[in-house]
Amino acid sequence: MNGAESLVHTLADGGIEVCFANPGTSEMHFVAALDRTRRMRCVLGLFEGVVTAAADGYARMAEKPAVTLLHLAPGLANASANLHNAKKARTPMVNVVGDHAVRHLAFDAPLTGDVEGAARPFSHWVRTARTAATVANEGAFALHAAQSFPGRVATLVLPADTAWEPGGSPVATPEAAAPEPLAEAQIAAAADQLARDGSGSAIVLGFRTLTDPATLRLAAAVAERTGATLLSPTSNPRTERGGGLPFIPKIPYPVDDALALLAPVRHCVLIEAAEPVAFFAYPERPSRVLPESCHVHALARPGQCGREAIARLAERLGVEADPATSPGERQRAPTTGGLEPELIAQAVAAHLPEQAIVADEGLTLGRAIYAATRDVVPHSWLSLTGGAIGIGFPMATGAAVACPDRKVLALQADGSGMYTPQALWSQAREGLDITTVVFANRGYQSLKQELFKVGANPGRTALDMLEVGEPALDWVSLAKGMGVPGERVRDAPGLSAALGRGLASPGPYLIEAAVA
Amino acid sequence: MNGAESLVHTLADGGIEVCFANPGTSEMHFVAALDRTRRMRCVLGLFEGVVTAAADGYARMAEKPAVTLLHLAPGLANASANLHNAKKARTPMVNVVGDHAVRHLAFDAPLTGDVEGAARPFSHWVRTARTAATVANEGAFALHAAQSFPGRVATLVLPADTAWEPGGSPVATPEAAAPEPLAEAQIAAAADQLARDGSGSAIVLGFRTLTDPATLRLAAAVAERTGATLLSPTSNPRTERGGGLPFIPKIPYPVDDALALLAPVRHCVLIEAAEPVAFFAYPERPSRVLPESCHVHALARPGQCGREAIARLAERLGVEADPATSPGERQRAPTTGGLEPELIAQAVAAHLPEQAIVADEGLTLGRAIYAATRDVVPHSWLSLTGGAIGIGFPMATGAAVACPDRKVLALQADGSGMYTPQALWSQAREGLDITTVVFANRGYQSLKQELFKVGANPGRTALDMLEVGEPALDWVSLAKGMGVPGERVRDAPGLSAALGRGLASPGPYLIEAAVA
Repeated sequence: MNGAESLVHTLADGGIEVCFANPGTSEMHFVAALDRTRRMRCVLGLFEGVVTAAADGYARMAEKPAVTLLHLAPGLANASANLHNAKKARTPMVNVVGDHAVRHLAFDAPLTGDVEGAARPFSHWVRTARTAATVANEGAFALHAAQSFPGRVATLVLPADTAWEPGGSPVATPEAAAPEPLAEAQIAAAADQLARDGSGSAIVLGFRTLTDPATLRLAAAVAERTGATLLSPTSNPRTERGGGLPFIPKIPYPVDDALALLAPVRHCVLIEAAEPVAFFAYPERPSRVLPESCHVHALARPGQCGREAIARLAERLGVEADPATSPGERQRAPTTGGLEPELIAQAVAAHLPEQAIVADEGLTLGRAIYAATRDVVPHSWLSLTGGAIGIGFPMATGAAVACPDRKVLALQADGSGMYTPQALWSQAREGLDITTVVFANRGYQSLKQELFKVGANPGRTALDMLEVGEPALDWVSLAKGMGVPGERVRDAPGLSAALGRGLASPGPYLIEAAVA
Repeated sequence: MNGAESLVHTLADGGIEVCFANPGTSEMHFVAALDRTRRMRCVLGLFEGVVTAAADGYARMAEKPAVTLLHLAPGLANASANLHNAKKARTPMVNVVGDHAVRHLAFDAPLTGDVEGAARPFSHWVRTARTAATVANEGAFALHAAQSFPGRVATLVLPADTAWEPGGSPVATPEAAAPEPLAEAQIAAAADQLARDGSGSAIVLGFRTLTDPATLRLAAAVAERTGATLLSPTSNPRTERGGGLPFIPKIPYPVDDALALLAPVRHCVLIEAAEPVAFFAYPERPSRVLPESCHVHALARPGQCGREAIARLAERLGVEADPATSPGERQRAPTTGGLEPELIAQAVAAHLPEQAIVADEGLTLGRAIYAATRDVVPHSWLSLTGGAIGIGFPMATGAAVACPDRKVLALQADGSGMYTPQALWSQAREGLDITTVVFANRGYQSLKQELFKVGANPGRTALDMLEVGEPALDWVSLAKGMGVPGERVRDAPGLSAALGRGLASPGPYLIEAAVA
């Protein structure tokens, strides 16, 4: 057995079922091993940023890692913006990045580059395989690292000769380590504080607390009993919503809105969440958005188990959750009106299928739709986590691979959509059940707001840099070019009808909502 | 004057006229400074890989750097595959990469990342600006580094507060350093060897030797006098060709072809070229493609002046160049036949305009066309230098920005074209005079050859990973989606007619050659 085969068996034995891939010459033996072993489903992406965001979307839904296959330092670089998002999401992921055979590196061939160096800023764990005999062991370490709670991005560099040489044998991956223990004293102090004066307290729930309905209900019961406010970070990997689950507002992205919301908070309880800070720095604004006098209670950092923290907090407060569920409210679709944010949101809320997965890179409009869908049918909501735009199309792709029996609705801003449009081709190739709405506002709207916010008093040249309307992007043609059918809508009833069509038919469908 | 304005003035005073940009919030003050100073043409790219390849194509033609504007570590990562190509091409380039304000970095906001770490594998020079008062000085150093002979990729990280704070003032950029001196003794030894037994010698000409017609003629005279063979590396940033200039064959990309060609070489004279090596390592093939017994004479490394090396070599041999030029031969366009490589090449050779710039990411077909255009009208040929696919569309874009009075012909393989198709939008927006031929063979043909070459005996899963034909990419629709008109052709006369139409009309045009 060669090194590549031993690595494929090791990863498959460890539970990996899917390989998202954009291979090159140095990965041909790994490709051949995937072929011979037939132990993974292979999904091809035409660009590496598609591959990593798809693996991210997959893992958020499957709750286990996929493997990605990438080609040398430039391929890894193309993949890295969405590795950044996955790293911030604490998504479990194993990247296998081919490199030249060790003996070839000294010659500085055209594709030679520093693969480990390129990987380090975007991975939690990086290692280069040494020999064909040890590559399976290194793969097991990578998988083990990826499965550290709640998840880590692990990158294994695979020199071509460690893949093609014989002498490999599969290795069992060690059990994932348990989350780091909680500090009981901090839980006790927070419980005391909440019992004493809950109304000035905010409880910020992040990461895996947001994916467990029972935890969400228990947190809501704690908030109700103590008068505390529940919040979640601006960006979250996955949130379970609808069907009677409590609505957890997000800390707003605009810094002034965040400052205003948090101004009355005297105690902030963090559960799998970091202290909230501004997304960007601005000349006349603080980086920290909590009031300076606010006391911070970090009950569970990311890496500790927030579900357990909430359970213990509830226990100390003597609170139990109300297990009642509801089917969710069905909103009425708009029958008139243009593509205003509230009517767009209403149309989506009306058509969202039960157990849908929403992949949200809708930015401004995504926020409006998030608010409007708080009480609808049960669904999962996936967000852009690291601020690196270009996650939407491929994250939806990966989620659909993970959950073939659920409908995926992708909400996509147009400027961001141009970073990884190639994912549409993978959607068509795999026949994935994804309906995408592109909000064609023909510009980087959030950047225009930012330009004014930094006090830059912009002129023509500056504003031109934030316009994507000249020429107008024609998303229906772009989708057609990649094998995805679609249509353009110009008003709310048109959007509503198109959503009905797209969500009712199997396979991918794209709706360009011409909002400007 | 704030730091951003002082930096813009410094770079403009140093000769930079164009900024290729994909900005975000942290670059808004630099954008505002570009706006207020009006000292640079700003060209927007919808994806960062477009920005850096355009700056590369621009610099290859303008023979001076452009500046790129990029957003944080993920934006830099998206730009890096084409930075890799630019670094291998030794293209002068200054990247300005925004980062969070220094005070904001401690808070690990979602977009926080290691910008310097991400830059280092893909840049020759990396520095982070410290204060608004010193940023101009750091910019001058970056520009000076970029202009080191023959060119370097310099990356300046610009924390937002060093851009927005006051206290900046422009700085003069030091003169570019002269190339490293040549070793006269080596030139003498090579001249003696060539005079004694030229017929077993190969002279490999790289980098700037290929862009100077006088140098090419002199090298040809040396070869004619001594019986030596002229060669160039597999990948070259820019080659001046046609109009009676000597044809310099490239060392073939397929390793077996390179080994066969070089087998008789007993002496190899390298002039601005590294020793030729295989593009990739293969199990049963050497990394070095020169015979083991071959003597290597490194007259000029990249960084030394090959033009001077050839002049001195010619002087020692008493050789003078024949200055005669020719208008080049005009080939007849094919009037019948399908899209076979030789007929495609014939159609291109027949239609290539005088002083055209060819941006070649045509891979296999690009090689056929390279051979067929050896004796046509004068033109410049730009190649993929670092093997990181996805340079074609944007390199053509940058070349057209540099030379508005010349026609640009882009030769584009379809698999590679899907890495940076967004460049078509910039072509439409800027009204650039570029005709693109996409060779739609619906697969990664070179990878298929590689899969067989590594002896992997591929099955269905493996071959599926190298097919992009299901669904077929519809390049005419993709181009339309980005505002570029186009057509599909299915035979040689159709291609010929379409080339005529595209090259005769101003602005961008795309031809999908359905070769499979």
